[in-house]
Amino acid sequence: MTDQQMVRPAAISGFPEWLPEVRIVEQHWLDVVRAGFERYGFCSVETPSVESLDVLMAKGETSQEVYALRRLQEDAGDSSDSRLGLHFDLTVPFARYVAQHFNDLVFPFKRYQIQRVWRGERAQEGRFREFTQCDIDVINVDHVPLHFDAELPRVIHDVMTGLDLPEWTLNINNRKVLQGFYQGLGVDDPLEVIRTVDKMDKLGAKGVGELLSTKVGLTGRQVDACLELASVRATHASVVDAVQATGVRSELLAEGLDELAFVMDALRDLPEGSVVADLSIARGLDYYTGTVYEGKFKDWPNYGSICSGGRYENLAGSFIRRNLPGIGMSIGLTRIFAKLLAEGLVTTGPSCPSDVLVVLPGDEHRVVAAEVAGTLRGRGLNVELYHQADKVAKQIRYASRKGIPFVWFPPFSEGRAHEVKDLATGEQRAADPEAWQRT
Amino acid sequence: MTDQQMVRPAAISGFPEWLPEVRIVEQHWLDVVRAGFERYGFCSVETPSVESLDVLMAKGETSQEVYALRRLQEDAGDSSDSRLGLHFDLTVPFARYVAQHFNDLVFPFKRYQIQRVWRGERAQEGRFREFTQCDIDVINVDHVPLHFDAELPRVIHDVMTGLDLPEWTLNINNRKVLQGFYQGLGVDDPLEVIRTVDKMDKLGAKGVGELLSTKVGLTGRQVDACLELASVRATHASVVDAVQATGVRSELLAEGLDELAFVMDALRDLPEGSVVADLSIARGLDYYTGTVYEGKFKDWPNYGSICSGGRYENLAGSFIRRNLPGIGMSIGLTRIFAKLLAEGLVTTGPSCPSDVLVVLPGDEHRVVAAEVAGTLRGRGLNVELYHQADKVAKQIRYASRKGIPFVWFPPFSEGRAHEVKDLATGEQRAADPEAWQRT
Repeated sequence: MTDQQMVRPAAISGFPEWLPEVRIVEQHWLDVVRAGFERYGFCSVETPSVESLDVLMAKGETSQEVYALRRLQEDAGDSSDSRLGLHFDLTVPFARYVAQHFNDLVFPFKRYQIQRVWRGERAQEGRFREFTQCDIDVINVDHVPLHFDAELPRVIHDVMTGLDLPEWTLNINNRKVLQGFYQGLGVDDPLEVIRTVDKMDKLGAKGVGELLSTKVGLTGRQVDACLELASVRATHASVVDAVQATGVRSELLAEGLDELAFVMDALRDLPEGSVVADLSIARGLDYYTGTVYEGKFKDWPNYGSICSGGRYENLAGSFIRRNLPGIGMSIGLTRIFAKLLAEGLVTTGPSCPSDVLVVLPGDEHRVVAAEVAGTLRGRGLNVELYHQADKVAKQIRYASRKGIPFVWFPPFSEGRAHEVKDLATGEQRAADPEAWQRT
Repeated sequence: MTDQQMVRPAAISGFPEWLPEVRIVEQHWLDVVRAGFERYGFCSVETPSVESLDVLMAKGETSQEVYALRRLQEDAGDSSDSRLGLHFDLTVPFARYVAQHFNDLVFPFKRYQIQRVWRGERAQEGRFREFTQCDIDVINVDHVPLHFDAELPRVIHDVMTGLDLPEWTLNINNRKVLQGFYQGLGVDDPLEVIRTVDKMDKLGAKGVGELLSTKVGLTGRQVDACLELASVRATHASVVDAVQATGVRSELLAEGLDELAFVMDALRDLPEGSVVADLSIARGLDYYTGTVYEGKFKDWPNYGSICSGGRYENLAGSFIRRNLPGIGMSIGLTRIFAKLLAEGLVTTGPSCPSDVLVVLPGDEHRVVAAEVAGTLRGRGLNVELYHQADKVAKQIRYASRKGIPFVWFPPFSEGRAHEVKDLATGEQRAADPEAWQRT
């Protein structure tokens, strides 16, 4: 093969892939997430990786991030697929799915969806072009009970606790509190204030205050009240007292505070500090209308949110003439996993799932070796049969390099017993293939 | 919202998606496949959905099928991703992966890979544009032991037996037998004969015979011998006798027959008729060099192959200056699943994973209902807590429509016991949340 024909294999920026020993951990994470979602009765949905561009841009705001498809040979066959794009989140496909299959679903419809999504962004820390999201959403006709505002963060808390992450906090707020507060203050455009206050992370209180004053046109008293509200943090329903102390009143504010208190109260059994009412968070997306969520690592406050979500009205409204409000949360699995990996906090073990390697010292032992491997597999163990007659030391080295914990020696002469060697301790002892247990 | 803004949600031809009760079955299939692969010690690898077009076309033969990516806004950011395409199989990405991570892998490297692949084909029965493949491959430096030629079909047999499919046959052949036989016959271009005989399915023996005579230019005696070889089918190593009876001899043929006999002999414990040596199959792809596999449904012989694979030399040769031969098999999961679904052979059950619905007759019972749900979840059960205070009959109807088998009644007044209703039998009896088992 000549130089011209060689293609250098290289990582593509923003498209992560892992070595086998890392993939095993990622797969364990995915199992934990799935089991956690199912523990609360959420059902699995998968949608195609693509949607029509009409569907993807029904909200008209995300065209920049979409990867559209093109056939390499445009003249090959029909061209209907030139109007397809890879989905950039799992919410839009879910809304389309619910609208499309409306008559076949039972409501409130609780689904989880664990899939890759794609964004044509510049890759940087915490931002990938292909990554795995783990979403739960509840959609219902006309009204989603407040019950779910408290259930969703509990599910996410449970799941992420199972991942054994470094300390993180789930911050909760309610858009009605923000909008109602700003209305009570006599602000003309509460949404504009929400968008501005949402920049607190980047600009700090001083920067936000200046913008509220110069750009949004608030009075000094209004600016002070906005900043006061944004500073409220509480670990339980007492958040209501803190807001009421500001003296600002409105019907919408009262409604939002009731909802927020209900959620905080329902979560009061979770470990202190794991869930915090934080009135500074708003989640930029305009479609949130009530409870909003945002999870952050405690030690890396500037790293992006590791889970997020909220309540939205009628997300499927572009696709069906029904009122279908919903509430959802999403775990940024790849973002979390990649961060922990980069920080050296992912503990890897073996590079394969095998419990046992059965050795094969000579071809004349092939039948008996294959039999014991079959017996052990039948009992639920993951077993490799060494692939050729070879020196035993070489076979043990193979097991050791792959992290296979046990090496099995079938009886290679009449009357001898089966023996198993524990590579961690070096101990070797007789064992019965019908009864042996991995310790 | 006006008419103009509505987007009709519709299925996209060739991109399947399932309702929740069907997805549960598909997910079970995926679990069975994964567990089966791990039972033999294969490790999981996932690669990005995209590769550079250089990598995808290193073999230069598949450009027609590739979906390349394009940013919707071409001027947004860097344009490096305009040279990316979605992978059309899992073999090319795996070859690139092995070359790229060569120094970090233990050889022989046994991996499984269960991922979606994309092909820009016209959708038709059994052909999708997006579908899930389940691959196992072994790659080694310089030489892959014959052991794996027998292990791979055993793994696939085990896995597919676990899927409880309608009767199917795994046909096995060896390209050396074909090539050696044609050499022994004095044919000039054995590969051309292989490609022609591979059309047996479509053209029948008569059509293939005509082509061999007129297009490939074989003599009548040669054509007869080729057709005789292609008619050989045997369920065990006796296949060797049948070929030797033709009187044709060559060194390569003898080598191929030895390999084929080894494989058939190693699989002789599998149920009669499940594995067949079929000397008519060749697998069109030119890169197979030894054992080849092709699985077919018995009742739908004209439906595409449901699993396939073979032994190849140096597949990663485009990416690294190493000799890395391999052997692999692939299960066409979506193709099989969609066929069974179309034939009404997929038995669906509940549309959610819940074991139990805990009822909530009034808001005053919310705490105790949430507690019992938590207790049951802690014991590994999948539990929904009904989402609002409502009539009990309505809550039972919800469970029934979703296929939740048990409804739990917490003690709603002092001194009463917990009770569980089995919706299948209608029976209701007292139960202890700390001890109750789903039957």
